[in-house]
Amino acid sequence: MRKIPVGVLGATGMVGQNYIALLSDHPWFEPRFVAASPRSAGKPYKEAVAGRWHLEKTYKAATGELVVADANDVSTAVEASKRGDCAFVFSALEMGKDEIKALEEAYAAAGIPVISNASAHRWTPDVPMLIAEVNPHHTDVIPLQQKARGWGKGFIAVKPNCSIQSYMTPFYALIEAGFEIRRAVVATLQAVSGAGYPGVASLDIIGNVVPFIGGEEEKSEKEPLKILGAVSGGGIANAEFPRIAAHCNRVPVVDGHTACVSMEFGEKKPSIEEIKRIWRNFKALPQEMNLPFAPVQPIIVRDEDNRPQPRKDGGADKAMAVTVGRVRPCPVFDARFVGCSHNTVRGAAGGGILNAELLKVKGYVG
Amino acid sequence: MRKIPVGVLGATGMVGQNYIALLSDHPWFEPRFVAASPRSAGKPYKEAVAGRWHLEKTYKAATGELVVADANDVSTAVEASKRGDCAFVFSALEMGKDEIKALEEAYAAAGIPVISNASAHRWTPDVPMLIAEVNPHHTDVIPLQQKARGWGKGFIAVKPNCSIQSYMTPFYALIEAGFEIRRAVVATLQAVSGAGYPGVASLDIIGNVVPFIGGEEEKSEKEPLKILGAVSGGGIANAEFPRIAAHCNRVPVVDGHTACVSMEFGEKKPSIEEIKRIWRNFKALPQEMNLPFAPVQPIIVRDEDNRPQPRKDGGADKAMAVTVGRVRPCPVFDARFVGCSHNTVRGAAGGGILNAELLKVKGYVG
Amino acid sequence: MRKIPVGVLGATGMVGQNYIALLSDHPWFEPRFVAASPRSAGKPYKEAVAGRWHLEKTYKAATGELVVADANDVSTAVEASKRGDCAFVFSALEMGKDEIKALEEAYAAAGIPVISNASAHRWTPDVPMLIAEVNPHHTDVIPLQQKARGWGKGFIAVKPNCSIQSYMTPFYALIEAGFEIRRAVVATLQAVSGAGYPGVASLDIIGNVVPFIGGEEEKSEKEPLKILGAVSGGGIANAEFPRIAAHCNRVPVVDGHTACVSMEFGEKKPSIEEIKRIWRNFKALPQEMNLPFAPVQPIIVRDEDNRPQPRKDGGADKAMAVTVGRVRPCPVFDARFVGCSHNTVRGAAGGGILNAELLKVKGYVG
Amino acid sequence: MRKIPVGVLGATGMVGQNYIALLSDHPWFEPRFVAASPRSAGKPYKEAVAGRWHLEKTYKAATGELVVADANDVSTAVEASKRGDCAFVFSALEMGKDEIKALEEAYAAAGIPVISNASAHRWTPDVPMLIAEVNPHHTDVIPLQQKARGWGKGFIAVKPNCSIQSYMTPFYALIEAGFEIRRAVVATLQAVSGAGYPGVASLDIIGNVVPFIGGEEEKSEKEPLKILGAVSGGGIANAEFPRIAAHCNRVPVVDGHTACVSMEFGEKKPSIEEIKRIWRNFKALPQEMNLPFAPVQPIIVRDEDNRPQPRKDGGADKAMAVTVGRVRPCPVFDARFVGCSHNTVRGAAGGGILNAELLKVKGYVG
Repeated sequence: MRKIPVGVLGATGMVGQNYIALLSDHPWFEPRFVAASPRSAGKPYKEAVAGRWHLEKTYKAATGELVVADANDVSTAVEASKRGDCAFVFSALEMGKDEIKALEEAYAAAGIPVISNASAHRWTPDVPMLIAEVNPHHTDVIPLQQKARGWGKGFIAVKPNCSIQSYMTPFYALIEAGFEIRRAVVATLQAVSGAGYPGVASLDIIGNVVPFIGGEEEKSEKEPLKILGAVSGGGIANAEFPRIAAHCNRVPVVDGHTACVSMEFGEKKPSIEEIKRIWRNFKALPQEMNLPFAPVQPIIVRDEDNRPQPRKDGGADKAMAVTVGRVRPCPVFDARFVGCSHNTVRGAAGGGILNAELLKVKGYVG
Repeated sequence: MRKIPVGVLGATGMVGQNYIALLSDHPWFEPRFVAASPRSAGKPYKEAVAGRWHLEKTYKAATGELVVADANDVSTAVEASKRGDCAFVFSALEMGKDEIKALEEAYAAAGIPVISNASAHRWTPDVPMLIAEVNPHHTDVIPLQQKARGWGKGFIAVKPNCSIQSYMTPFYALIEAGFEIRRAVVATLQAVSGAGYPGVASLDIIGNVVPFIGGEEEKSEKEPLKILGAVSGGGIANAEFPRIAAHCNRVPVVDGHTACVSMEFGEKKPSIEEIKRIWRNFKALPQEMNLPFAPVQPIIVRDEDNRPQPRKDGGADKAMAVTVGRVRPCPVFDARFVGCSHNTVRGAAGGGILNAELLKVKGYVG
Repeated sequence: MRKIPVGVLGATGMVGQNYIALLSDHPWFEPRFVAASPRSAGKPYKEAVAGRWHLEKTYKAATGELVVADANDVSTAVEASKRGDCAFVFSALEMGKDEIKALEEAYAAAGIPVISNASAHRWTPDVPMLIAEVNPHHTDVIPLQQKARGWGKGFIAVKPNCSIQSYMTPFYALIEAGFEIRRAVVATLQAVSGAGYPGVASLDIIGNVVPFIGGEEEKSEKEPLKILGAVSGGGIANAEFPRIAAHCNRVPVVDGHTACVSMEFGEKKPSIEEIKRIWRNFKALPQEMNLPFAPVQPIIVRDEDNRPQPRKDGGADKAMAVTVGRVRPCPVFDARFVGCSHNTVRGAAGGGILNAELLKVKGYVG
Repeated sequence: MRKIPVGVLGATGMVGQNYIALLSDHPWFEPRFVAASPRSAGKPYKEAVAGRWHLEKTYKAATGELVVADANDVSTAVEASKRGDCAFVFSALEMGKDEIKALEEAYAAAGIPVISNASAHRWTPDVPMLIAEVNPHHTDVIPLQQKARGWGKGFIAVKPNCSIQSYMTPFYALIEAGFEIRRAVVATLQAVSGAGYPGVASLDIIGNVVPFIGGEEEKSEKEPLKILGAVSGGGIANAEFPRIAAHCNRVPVVDGHTACVSMEFGEKKPSIEEIKRIWRNFKALPQEMNLPFAPVQPIIVRDEDNRPQPRKDGGADKAMAVTVGRVRPCPVFDARFVGCSHNTVRGAAGGGILNAELLKVKGYVG
């Protein structure tokens, strides 16, 4: 099977590098178009990232030879698309929110589907914010989006913030099993790779904790409501619950976000054993369709007291699974647990690739 | 003024070293008796800790010359007491809980007051568990304790676990101002020095988080209820509120525990500004009596978004103040904040010394 | 092809776990016999390591079911050998040096070849200390060893200390190319995993450096001389050069030892470019024979100023390659460089497995 | 005694903050003039550093009220000088080397002595590069400098790079005692605070080592030669020895540089015991004159195997002493040791203040 050619916008940045690395041996997709800031434009990719490659995993030689395009110039992507080198783009753009918003729209208007990591369009009502295991049906707004804007095959789909990945799938599995979650207090211990590069200064975080990440608590509290919302009218109508209070902390961890969660159920309350069973048995569309980046088990439940830990569990199942542990009663609400997921894979580029796989099997890209 | 001679049980261990270091320039107390395990007994203190001294701060030359006694042998303390070298002891014993319980009782029965860091007697009803700014009146159970057990001037007083220090004084300041706290969800990010030495293996914690500390959540949830309780009958009757859910995490921080707290008030709810004002104005007995180890302000409120941080704020005001920040509304409960305090000073040896100062001015020791 | 059944002595310890993990998908070897201390003996392996498994990588389900034998009882290994479950053992024993010495001899005497990570037999003259790319011909002492001791097919082969791996292969490649190395000053920055578990206390190393590792400098200075020695008489005669001065430091890194090396050549001195070319072109027996654990390139030369780094380069080529960089003139000696290798894989279990592969193709085991 | 009013150029940067913090309770000097970039100019100092204060130690309320001047505008310093608010300035400027060079000259030409941390003038032959214990007589070039340039009481004096502090005073003590040092190989393990703020990205250094610091090895090798040089003609003539090879590494340590040193003496070679005795007995002008920032003992020798360590020893004696340990024979050269000093105090602002104290007692400022 010939691989689908894909583009990466912002390919030289931290998230862009993760896309390039993860796509290096993807069975369906192949990076054939890379775009970045004017500073990198015109250089072979390998030159543009020389001395600035931040990952252990590297890229294919062929990718290194791709000449970087100027991401601001949509026409190069259109040309790449015409010559069969860019069926859609992953957006890992790093610029002002308004600029990203306009630029992603320009790509979509030009007929290039945009699967984005940026937060710019997360609150655009007709743009789906996808976690492939949780709200794959939200892709239903794509035709509405295309129609409303007069776009052809172009569209925009986004993924949520990395901070919510460690508890969003566990929440959904319980909700799907019939247990409403009314309220939750969540404290996250987030890795520095979530801040990009150079990101957090080492002087601020070695042997220290910074109990604040700008904008993160707001995203953590609001994004779940759209993800759990219903397709309605021309867009997504937010869910009302769960009401979430988030405390977001930066800790000296390289990769892997941990979340301590206390949750209050509605009238129907599962036992601790039921919760664990529901999580262990949870499978969703990506598993059923056997998507390449889908973890075998979306939620791995560990019974040891001292797990999950970001360094040991963040990489579970291609770094795409959420690992949970310490499932136990909560003296204030009903139950509590610790969740952990890999922020730059599941929470960023890997999550975007899984969304692309979902959109491929649904026929929106490819 | 001649200094009061004091003893330290478990003087070679981690907490014991902290006592020795903090007492090295104390204006009232002077370490004149040191006891430890039989392995150290008979050696000069400086030899017993050679190559095993874990702190930056050091001890006085005279202390180094003290010959270490066997802590299991109460008679040496009695002799020291008789010759004027041991008015009371700080207990930093590291052995089984039941052994500590019995041994502390033996010292008290022999007429030596015991001011303890150990958890052994925290739930003995007639033993006060003191935070000098919160429940100094709990010393009222000491005469009852002495009478019930037929002890002379010996008694036992303890301090609570280090994990609750970052929020207990803030809670109390609000309660004292008339605002009942009904429920709280607390996530702590705790320093490795809290686990003693060797404590946490570096392989477990470098670049990692361990979301579990044995027994810590139970202590964090229960101890506040005794501290906020009332002297009643022959002991302390626990308070009913606040109901607390604790999530205790170990993080790669050397000193300083951080707590993320969401709290629900009773019917009377203070505004965020009121909370900050109450905390900024809070003073208690140790401040009024100008005790040497009392922080000028028990609660320091910071307005910057990214504070408190354990490395920058743990040492505030002789490492005896609690620093709070990010005081803001809570979408699930009423208000939330981040608290930070130094676990081995305020939370351990420094807190014990402040308790001793309180007991001194109240006439129980000295 | 049926896999060769192998045993692991000390299978529940840190190095033992590394063996089990690395063997989990080995193409030639299969762990079928596991032995450990009497405490673990009699339990299924999975129970013996429950809550004590320190690695990200895990083991096969079948290995988890193996019942742990008492490593002190050689007869169980002999029985395993007879029933076809133990062609040879990897020794990752953790006990006193003399005990290990005697026990490894007992296994060998009983006909079980021992491929050891322990330091006990490193200075036994007729025991080869192997780095598969450097001194594969030292296996020639094995028949002498067997004969002298009256052993049948049993024998002992060891590997050197992890601290020398980052510069030993680079040294050898230059020596083999005709450039004698007379003197070298080496400063190592060593990862905590090299100390086993629990190993280094987190209180000692977070945000700190410990400029001492017991016995490490002596090993670093002496072991290269045996490795570069000649088979002579009934054993190995040490080489005279290079004379090495080692400064061994522990740093807060999880895996990967780094070495800063200044070296003085004999009369024939290579240029910096020659050094890099020699290293880039270096291949040895493991590469020629295409051994499964052999890195494609034993020495990877990087040109960026800021590499190698343990976190980014330690894992290069299955964590079996040595990565070098900063090759430049030395104002005091002739040339200097930085070397980096993975201490628990290349420097421990992976190196042992590569030695076993070498011994297999040479017909000593299997 | 009225304190001498001093200025700090670059007062809002990392080194500038260190100056302000260390001067907050200085017995002789008082910060009364602060200058920084145009961005901060016109604001009260406390506003200019709000949310950007990086230190535990803080500044005096009065300093917080000082209005920040534009450091590029020398005339404001001249005015401050005229009204008695600026007897001299500490330069902690952060801009291009040529700009700093010109600007420091402009201040000096305008009659304001400049005591600088910048590297810009380190190689100007008539500018002394001072370590107060090592080359206090180099101040003799100041009158030559003033005369050659036609300056009045203005002049420039600098301090060397922080990386050499851990071995430069130990080297000098031996040289002064008659033992020439011919060659040395030095490997440094340097703290992140040496890189300023934001400096090293946390993603690069958590759980990692970076074996490269731009320009640092060159400075480490060359600066000692000027410091050990002789006043000759109109400037300083470099010493010929020791020839130094430096390997500079960044490690995840907040404060405190560690150096592993192998040294070769000339014909006269001290024993290990002699070296330790010389270091223990070493005193110099700052000690004799009892300068406020002078450590009581410039070199502290520790006998424990595992010291010095940056976290435990960096702060020794007001963070102004050098702590050495592991003094032992070197199999390649003659002797080796580990040195440790605090890079932002002894190696930066504290060293500058000590130089100012020296210049004060010599009558050059004040």
